[in-house]
Amino acid sequence: MRKRTAAVVVIGNEILTGKAQDKNASFLIGELYRLGVALRRIVVIPDEVDEIARTVRDCAAQFDYVFTSGGVGPTHDDVTIEGIARAFGRAVARHQELAEIIRGYLGDDVDEARMRMADAPEGTRLIHSEGLRWPVLAVENVYILPGVPEHFRKKFEAIREHFRVEPFHTRAIYIREDEFDIAHWLSQLAADHPDVEIGSYPNFASADYRVKITVESKEAAAVERAVAALLSLLDPSVLVRTE
Amino acid sequence: MRKRTAAVVVIGNEILTGKAQDKNASFLIGELYRLGVALRRIVVIPDEVDEIARTVRDCAAQFDYVFTSGGVGPTHDDVTIEGIARAFGRAVARHQELAEIIRGYLGDDVDEARMRMADAPEGTRLIHSEGLRWPVLAVENVYILPGVPEHFRKKFEAIREHFRVEPFHTRAIYIREDEFDIAHWLSQLAADHPDVEIGSYPNFASADYRVKITVESKEAAAVERAVAALLSLLDPSVLVRTE
Repeated sequence: MRKRTAAVVVIGNEILTGKAQDKNASFLIGELYRLGVALRRIVVIPDEVDEIARTVRDCAAQFDYVFTSGGVGPTHDDVTIEGIARAFGRAVARHQELAEIIRGYLGDDVDEARMRMADAPEGTRLIHSEGLRWPVLAVENVYILPGVPEHFRKKFEAIREHFRVEPFHTRAIYIREDEFDIAHWLSQLAADHPDVEIGSYPNFASADYRVKITVESKEAAAVERAVAALLSLLDPSVLVRTE
Repeated sequence: MRKRTAAVVVIGNEILTGKAQDKNASFLIGELYRLGVALRRIVVIPDEVDEIARTVRDCAAQFDYVFTSGGVGPTHDDVTIEGIARAFGRAVARHQELAEIIRGYLGDDVDEARMRMADAPEGTRLIHSEGLRWPVLAVENVYILPGVPEHFRKKFEAIREHFRVEPFHTRAIYIREDEFDIAHWLSQLAADHPDVEIGSYPNFASADYRVKITVESKEAAAVERAVAALLSLLDPSVLVRTE
């Protein structure tokens, strides 16, 4: 099965200047991992049309899914829709179905500021879901999500199951050995087992272990083979535990 | 004075898969803001030489400073040095001064795994500072920092004052008005005051205020002019407070 990949594009000066903390990319990290989707890039950029266009175009070409966060409100600094339209060389146009949803809530005499929420890149698809007042907008492989964390979560949860594939399998081995002293045979292990990802994370703070080694793959058997090889290389006295 | 810009490049599969949480980019957000440096991009990418090379090259060309986090240990997944070398078309070579530092700590019979910590892109500069056992490595406008948060902080703090410029001035105005109903005159305000950045952040959770408007610039007087204009536009009854 082909590996599915994703990028998260967080749009907002407020994140880059520390006026607000990112909660959406960090939420998606866990969600995508559990869905079996390989998150390959997180980018945080300002509310600028050209930056958004360039970043979204680049990510949409390289990864299966792109999730954007933020910049979809009604004010001058909300330029995500325009940026995504420009990424794909499309115009922004009033989306009739979105316009009807707004009129359904607010009546025919809705003002133009509110009606502008119905403007979207041409060819935008709407993803409806029970419990969502406002659908998720998607353009090509780009899913446009709001910046407000509670709304972001609710919308992503509504579409989450669209993305589920085979899960990742991960094991962790904790050892009391210095990274310098295992680097050589870790390289060998990585070369012998190209079907798994091997990570090595030193711990300088704990007396419990010195290095956590992780072995990960979509194939459980490949993980077990690599872990067995790792344990056979290891002097048993340095093993703290496996998880 | 020309505005100084920066990018942060976080390198690590462990962040993208949720095995570890980013602490370094979020730390630098506050540090750079207080230094007066405009952070323009944060990117999180995997431990892959080509991804690192492409991202670092791109950021180094666009921004004044690039700070990398992670991938500088001794194991197979530590490929930041190679990636940065490739970004600039340079070879990786043993850095004589770094090699001497290692020999100074460990003696002449140091093993090759440890000595490899002295390998760096050709032309790497070393930035020494009191209290740092290991200098900060810099290549062109790229500052190479470790992934372990305590080490990252200590190293950044040692070089922080190199980057200080004029501070940002920011005011915040909290109002009890809907974003839709202020969008029009916020656009006008932004057009009339191109010398400030105006942000608009809705709050759906609090009864206290509905929108926080921020006005920001390197020029205190420009901020005060825009805030005065904003307050004159505003019906006093919707003003909650200014900060």
